[in-house]
Amino acid sequence: MPLSEFQLIQHYFQAHAAGRDDVVLGIGDDAALVTPHPDCELVLAIDTLVAGVHFPLDTDAADIGYKLLAVNLSDLAAMGAEPSWMTLALTLPESDPQWLEKFSQGLFELADQYGVAIIGGDTTRGPLTLSLQAHGQLPGGSALQRSGARPGDSVFVTGVLGGAAIALAALQGEFELSPDEMDHCRARLDRPTPRLAVGQALRGIATAAIDISDGLMADLGHIAGQSGVGAEIVADQLPLDVIESASLSAERHRQLALTVGDDYELCFTAPDSAIEKIRAIAFSSDCSITEIGKITASESVRVVDWQGKPIELQLDGYQHFPEQK
Amino acid sequence: MPLSEFQLIQHYFQAHAAGRDDVVLGIGDDAALVTPHPDCELVLAIDTLVAGVHFPLDTDAADIGYKLLAVNLSDLAAMGAEPSWMTLALTLPESDPQWLEKFSQGLFELADQYGVAIIGGDTTRGPLTLSLQAHGQLPGGSALQRSGARPGDSVFVTGVLGGAAIALAALQGEFELSPDEMDHCRARLDRPTPRLAVGQALRGIATAAIDISDGLMADLGHIAGQSGVGAEIVADQLPLDVIESASLSAERHRQLALTVGDDYELCFTAPDSAIEKIRAIAFSSDCSITEIGKITASESVRVVDWQGKPIELQLDGYQHFPEQK
Repeated sequence: MPLSEFQLIQHYFQAHAAGRDDVVLGIGDDAALVTPHPDCELVLAIDTLVAGVHFPLDTDAADIGYKLLAVNLSDLAAMGAEPSWMTLALTLPESDPQWLEKFSQGLFELADQYGVAIIGGDTTRGPLTLSLQAHGQLPGGSALQRSGARPGDSVFVTGVLGGAAIALAALQGEFELSPDEMDHCRARLDRPTPRLAVGQALRGIATAAIDISDGLMADLGHIAGQSGVGAEIVADQLPLDVIESASLSAERHRQLALTVGDDYELCFTAPDSAIEKIRAIAFSSDCSITEIGKITASESVRVVDWQGKPIELQLDGYQHFPEQK
Repeated sequence: MPLSEFQLIQHYFQAHAAGRDDVVLGIGDDAALVTPHPDCELVLAIDTLVAGVHFPLDTDAADIGYKLLAVNLSDLAAMGAEPSWMTLALTLPESDPQWLEKFSQGLFELADQYGVAIIGGDTTRGPLTLSLQAHGQLPGGSALQRSGARPGDSVFVTGVLGGAAIALAALQGEFELSPDEMDHCRARLDRPTPRLAVGQALRGIATAAIDISDGLMADLGHIAGQSGVGAEIVADQLPLDVIESASLSAERHRQLALTVGDDYELCFTAPDSAIEKIRAIAFSSDCSITEIGKITASESVRVVDWQGKPIELQLDGYQHFPEQK
């Protein structure tokens, strides 16, 4: 990019570089310098959003900025980490000041909320591709991993599921939503809430955790696979987003919630002895937490009805967001 | 990307994740976990390469992998840091196992040389765009920054300049090179050597440092700007790559060396009292270091002849690498 790259960075990003005393040197040198907390482990997550693949091409730039950070903070939440700093690799077709202004507005709306400082990045010209790395910290040995689930543990999810998937399906013309419902679901898709407070509170309590980005079945499958266990989810216990569209059947609703990600809620496991603590976490973090099933000694993840009978799920029905015109 | 994303990552990258005992958790969870050295600052650099912008579209995938890491290690070298870990955000048009195999080969050829462990990343589908973040460490307070140059300091560069720029100009048809010279210059362009040993040895000695990615004039300009000083470069002292093409004039050669980057040599400043130490660093790191001029109290960077008379440079002649067919 021409010289204006530096001016743009200066204008839109550098102003947000200050504010943390563990940042020795932010944007503007060959690399950034930070001072990690000496008793902590460093937690690193990097995620890319590609225009037309991860968000519709007409998505508001402020929502893109917000979501780019949110999906990375969601990864930190799933580890139980506290976020500290971010770096940003922006590939842009052109230097569009209006786009950058809105993008940075959305990005810093979320960053400022959690005290995340931008410390570095790179701006290049090319097809719209946005990578962000989030850096967090947590006390050594306290990270929530995917591999700790044990048979008999209960399976929990935060919040409600399905809203983001319903927005995607409606955008693709599968059914109609009322304007209010579309706004609600679109907000779930565009501005997911990283469950940082819950994740941090679960350190020492949850045996495994993951954020739901690929759909509950796939993500719980990752926990099961890495823990060497299985899981049984009770369909009726799933906390579904309340949608009243006449053209969305209850079955399809559940299928979307189970197989499409983008809600960025947490799925975690914990022994029964932790139930009271988990209720307290839900209360103090103002985020519902629902028990949806059990970890089993089998090696499969299945959904059952209230009588324990397996429900067949069509798992191959989902296509990643196709390119928009 | 479909499920094969996981298989590809497993196959090509995860095998290189081990080998450092400061990696608590590498690829395969929501985020990576590392243990920074308690007495060190953390040094973070992220750079993106876009196909057709930063490298010709026909570039060998192994060279792309090599260069992607090299340009980031070069940033760490310019800070005086020792590299530790890397994360990788790959956006690929398709899952091409052959391309990934060669790419990872080139990447790990360099990574293994410096003990850099891959700890995480993200693979998405889209136009070929590659971001890598390199993480290094150095003792607190010892980083080489751009802002420390003082009037009277000497200006130095490592290695020789111009080879990468000459390759670019020849690829764009400006002049012909013999096959041997093209190979030599293309290697300078595709596989730059990050000057890590020199950078680390310069801690406590150099007053300012930067790596030459935008061209010596622009990069020395960054040092001058951030240090609030100027600089005077003696044209005849520039260490130029030896090229014997009849169609490349000496003047154009020097202009390319001064105004086009991609050599990834270091430019640094130091007081005269450090000369003996700098000679020793050049000797022990087996890398030539040349004094090319002086920091001045003015606010401009200029090139002069051996009599001190200013030489006009056409600085606007350079275009970033244009898209190839």
